[in-house]
Amino acid sequence: MEDKKDGMNYAPKGKPVTVVKEGEFIIAAVALDHGHIYGMCNGLTEAGATLKWVYDPDNEKVRRFQKSFPEVMAAESEEQILNDPEVKLVCGAAVTSLRCELGLRVMAAGKDYFTDKAPLTTLEQLDQAKEMVRKTGKKYMVYYSERIHVEAAVFAGELIEKGAIGTPIHIDGFGPHRVGNPESRPDWFFEKDKYGGILCDIGSHQIEQFLYYCGVRDATVTYSQIGNYKYKEYPELDDFGDAVLVGDNGTTQHFRVDWLTPDGLSTWGDGRTFILGTEGYIELRKYINVGTGDNTSNHVYLVDGNGEHHFEVSGKVGYPFFGELILDCINRTENAMTQEHAFKAAELCVKAQLQAKTRSLTKVSKDAT
Amino acid sequence: MEDKKDGMNYAPKGKPVTVVKEGEFIIAAVALDHGHIYGMCNGLTEAGATLKWVYDPDNEKVRRFQKSFPEVMAAESEEQILNDPEVKLVCGAAVTSLRCELGLRVMAAGKDYFTDKAPLTTLEQLDQAKEMVRKTGKKYMVYYSERIHVEAAVFAGELIEKGAIGTPIHIDGFGPHRVGNPESRPDWFFEKDKYGGILCDIGSHQIEQFLYYCGVRDATVTYSQIGNYKYKEYPELDDFGDAVLVGDNGTTQHFRVDWLTPDGLSTWGDGRTFILGTEGYIELRKYINVGTGDNTSNHVYLVDGNGEHHFEVSGKVGYPFFGELILDCINRTENAMTQEHAFKAAELCVKAQLQAKTRSLTKVSKDAT
Repeated sequence: MEDKKDGMNYAPKGKPVTVVKEGEFIIAAVALDHGHIYGMCNGLTEAGATLKWVYDPDNEKVRRFQKSFPEVMAAESEEQILNDPEVKLVCGAAVTSLRCELGLRVMAAGKDYFTDKAPLTTLEQLDQAKEMVRKTGKKYMVYYSERIHVEAAVFAGELIEKGAIGTPIHIDGFGPHRVGNPESRPDWFFEKDKYGGILCDIGSHQIEQFLYYCGVRDATVTYSQIGNYKYKEYPELDDFGDAVLVGDNGTTQHFRVDWLTPDGLSTWGDGRTFILGTEGYIELRKYINVGTGDNTSNHVYLVDGNGEHHFEVSGKVGYPFFGELILDCINRTENAMTQEHAFKAAELCVKAQLQAKTRSLTKVSKDAT
Repeated sequence: MEDKKDGMNYAPKGKPVTVVKEGEFIIAAVALDHGHIYGMCNGLTEAGATLKWVYDPDNEKVRRFQKSFPEVMAAESEEQILNDPEVKLVCGAAVTSLRCELGLRVMAAGKDYFTDKAPLTTLEQLDQAKEMVRKTGKKYMVYYSERIHVEAAVFAGELIEKGAIGTPIHIDGFGPHRVGNPESRPDWFFEKDKYGGILCDIGSHQIEQFLYYCGVRDATVTYSQIGNYKYKEYPELDDFGDAVLVGDNGTTQHFRVDWLTPDGLSTWGDGRTFILGTEGYIELRKYINVGTGDNTSNHVYLVDGNGEHHFEVSGKVGYPFFGELILDCINRTENAMTQEHAFKAAELCVKAQLQAKTRSLTKVSKDAT
């Protein structure tokens, strides 16, 4: 399933590079509330994982999932999966506010957990998750898809690692998304205590990218704000939010997220990342090169001391995260992503949401010029 | 003089649309410290103004100016110009901290003043300028060139006015600039009390665009920060700054300015403006369409309910500001720009600078992922 009109169901397929053989690393999918579960399972199965089970209380969701993954067996209950010693990792895309509870059950059952972002919605959940990691030694990994499942974003990480822009100092990220037909969205999408607020939800992608590209271990949310500008009939939907973060190494980020992608855009969002370094800068046009009509994606622009370089990397980079995650689970390493990193992004996106000021349009002073 | 490698000497030439006949509106140029004086005089003479006098204590600067404007006479002193009753408007591009003083003398002499941005560097100067406007009824107008002298920016204003993106709610602006060879810059460029700090100096362009595009009459700088990341040998040069503003109508802005344009970029800065509305968005690529190598500029991308629209408007829009300013001076109207607007942008850029937190790189935690 790959639907470019709708980010919720955007599930990239990469070039398969398997790190394990059939049956060597067995996974399951529990809770299919968000379409990201497809991308998560694509990534892992392409890297060699064997998807044994699926479970969701909604049989319709299970049947649809089985169309994409015909080998997977429908479990009768979550317990059946948690009690299966063959299953090493459980993937989940529950309602955001329930992702932590699911993870706690998964880890308590002795399995690693891989959840859709945002991985949780409150600082209390974060404490519980950290405690469970300490107790069990299991992983609570997160599908921050806008970096790990976007070839342009992966390539940017490689460029920065090579020093292509000197020392990164600042990132600007835009994460526009399309609501689409609100009727096609589940109710929880519009309930803030369930989806967590825009800075927690889609903001988590942005903050994770800041930590990653700028080499930040800890950061402060120095400013954040949210608004409901367009979707007045859904007052709990923040359709806009932005924030400024300062990293412990002195780097800074501003990001903007919104649910305002116009119908005329040929994909679900014109996601961009601009990474400014001391010796150059990178721009990512992740899902579209707007206005060109060429239906391409994964554009990377690098400007350095020597010139302007343009790479179109679709199909050329792959998604190393998934194979690394499988090997991390097997070898108890942290090459795909450290637990500290996954939790720090979660913490900061909850904090950004908690401290956000609420904005709304008042009068518009048209004659101000 | 049009030098695309160097923003300081970037002086656009537009298609002439004259609003007055030769000799009907006489202007002079005083203080040639910043190359913007060329763009200012281009704009006004193309609109019909007659450039009678030039004065600067540096004869070399005057001789260079006369090469671009062969009709202009070199005055022996500033007084000679201020005492000439034919002169209606004096253009100045003094050292930033001296722009207000010059303006006060010009207005006291009964003439309108048109200064390069930033128009002043302190709130005390702003008070003096406002007082002089009250006393004399003369104008203290400002060359916010990154909007009024950029066809893409002018066109964006027309699109917004037509409602192309619904109600604007948020703007992101990037104003990257190139230092070039620091030796070629005057000393004052690196002295903060003279150039005013980056948020005051090149930040003023950004704030003016926010007020204009979002129809904002007053705003609060809710966050700002500056840094000296690369040009350590010039510790008073902020080579980075960004800020968040909230308008009185609930709209918001984030902008970033910097002096970090890499040598490899084929123009002086990859200036962008992203205007997000309830029904669509606009992206401006003002000076370059990076990575295309096609040497074009003034790209406007509009995405609305119907599709993605791309306009390349170089030579197609012109710069109506200059003709409007001439007519405003003659008719005592405010069509080009209100005094309130010019001063509000000045006030906010000074405030953004005053309250900015200073950032610097410390350690870089490379293993944070």
